Amino acid sequence: MFNASPDIREQIAASPCLQPRSDGPLRHSPIRSVVLTNADVDHIAGLLSLREREPFVIYATARVLETLRTNSIFRVLNTEVVERRELPLDGSVDIEGPQGPIGIRVDTFTVPGKVALFLEDNAPGQENFGTELGDTIGVRIRPQGGGPAAYYIPGCAQIDAALKARLSGAACLMFDGTVYHDTEMHDTGVGEKTGQRMGHISMSGKNGSLQALGEVEIERRIYVHINNTNPVLDPGSDAAKTVQAAGWEIAFDGMEIDL
Amino acid sequence: MFNASPDIREQIAASPCLQPRSDGPLRHSPIRSVVLTNADVDHIAGLLSLREREPFVIYATARVLETLRTNSIFRVLNTEVVERRELPLDGSVDIEGPQGPIGIRVDTFTVPGKVALFLEDNAPGQENFGTELGDTIGVRIRPQGGGPAAYYIPGCAQIDAALKARLSGAACLMFDGTVYHDTEMHDTGVGEKTGQRMGHISMSGKNGSLQALGEVEIERRIYVHINNTNPVLDPGSDAAKTVQAAGWEIAFDGMEIDL
Repeated sequence: MFNASPDIREQIAASPCLQPRSDGPLRHSPIRSVVLTNADVDHIAGLLSLREREPFVIYATARVLETLRTNSIFRVLNTEVVERRELPLDGSVDIEGPQGPIGIRVDTFTVPGKVALFLEDNAPGQENFGTELGDTIGVRIRPQGGGPAAYYIPGCAQIDAALKARLSGAACLMFDGTVYHDTEMHDTGVGEKTGQRMGHISMSGKNGSLQALGEVEIERRIYVHINNTNPVLDPGSDAAKTVQAAGWEIAFDGMEIDL
Repeated sequence: MFNASPDIREQIAASPCLQPRSDGPLRHSPIRSVVLTNADVDHIAGLLSLREREPFVIYATARVLETLRTNSIFRVLNTEVVERRELPLDGSVDIEGPQGPIGIRVDTFTVPGKVALFLEDNAPGQENFGTELGDTIGVRIRPQGGGPAAYYIPGCAQIDAALKARLSGAACLMFDGTVYHDTEMHDTGVGEKTGQRMGHISMSGKNGSLQALGEVEIERRIYVHINNTNPVLDPGSDAAKTVQAAGWEIAFDGMEIDL
């Protein structure tokens, strides 16, 4: 239902990367599979934009698949066209598209996190808001036949010794960059929740990811999943300079990563 | 979670309409209320992009509100911040924002339509897929104190004498422009459903909207809700020339309408 204004049409016409593939089918999408690490809205709402009857495969833990199943709006992705497959909590899967293997192996591991905010159980005594194992995972992504490994961990509440050991020697880490300061949502007046309350470790501070991962040997480290309160989004900020000086890149829409 | 690439940053900086209001609060949205005419995904998924704890009011029929209530993902719009109010099926409502009346009156009326595709009941004997009154409505929009009226009817399966009488004399009509040919989804190879099967009248044909509304006195007539198979989206197409020759405008993203 996209009908561009004349100005936008000109911009699209001038940009090579916005041209439709002349040899592709109508409504073609190159996406053959989607791996979900969490059921929060910023992880699953994008699925609704893929509702064009183009086949692909969704991989997620049982907890996340259950969220898709119980929200009827996700029926716009007809299960006859868009297959759902369960990810193990700690296991290895050769990712497939509708036509079979795509040459990528994913290893899953649970990380300290939280149930999706919109699924919280606020009953008295539910100190963890109903969080269960499988609500948040991280993944290692690598070629099926072996090769450099990238880690994708967009939500993580805490970095412990086991996680550091796991990440040591990685070619690339894309890590939870939600907040810089644990209290920045409150400090900027847009909300009350801390990073910890949302299941996200902060970049800064004694227990932050800059400090915790500082000594771990990782070739490229990239912050992803960056909240719009995070000062690193302003390239001129002290926060941006601090993370870059510590060897981190700040992800942006359209970023491509070659390993 | 938007972090623009350097190219996009330049484009944003060069466009006055993309600048944040310097006097506005963080995360400010000018949207004070939303009126839904249907629960289909293209009507309700946009609500998920308004999840920034900015207060507004959602108006919808009981059927549509029930869909929001039973899809837990819409809890991202906390009911303490984003109020839900029921629209009558045939009635008149002075629309309010969080601070009270905004000066707009909406009159509702049911139109021939369909339950949202993702809510279809495919049980044998359910010839209408479980469609009930209130699944699709049209609205008349006008200043609370009187003035020119605009009609917004993005989904409509059929135009009968009663609807023609209602629209006669309108200052503006925004009408269901989903498909040009009833069978165009099939003809272009992207699906099997006809316009009628989806609850949408076609523009062309003996019973199409061009013909049915041709003799009705309407000052401005604008096609909205245009599917990406509809040839009118190509300004050089015969279809676009036909509808424009018949006095219709083709809506585009960012269109503004003054009455």
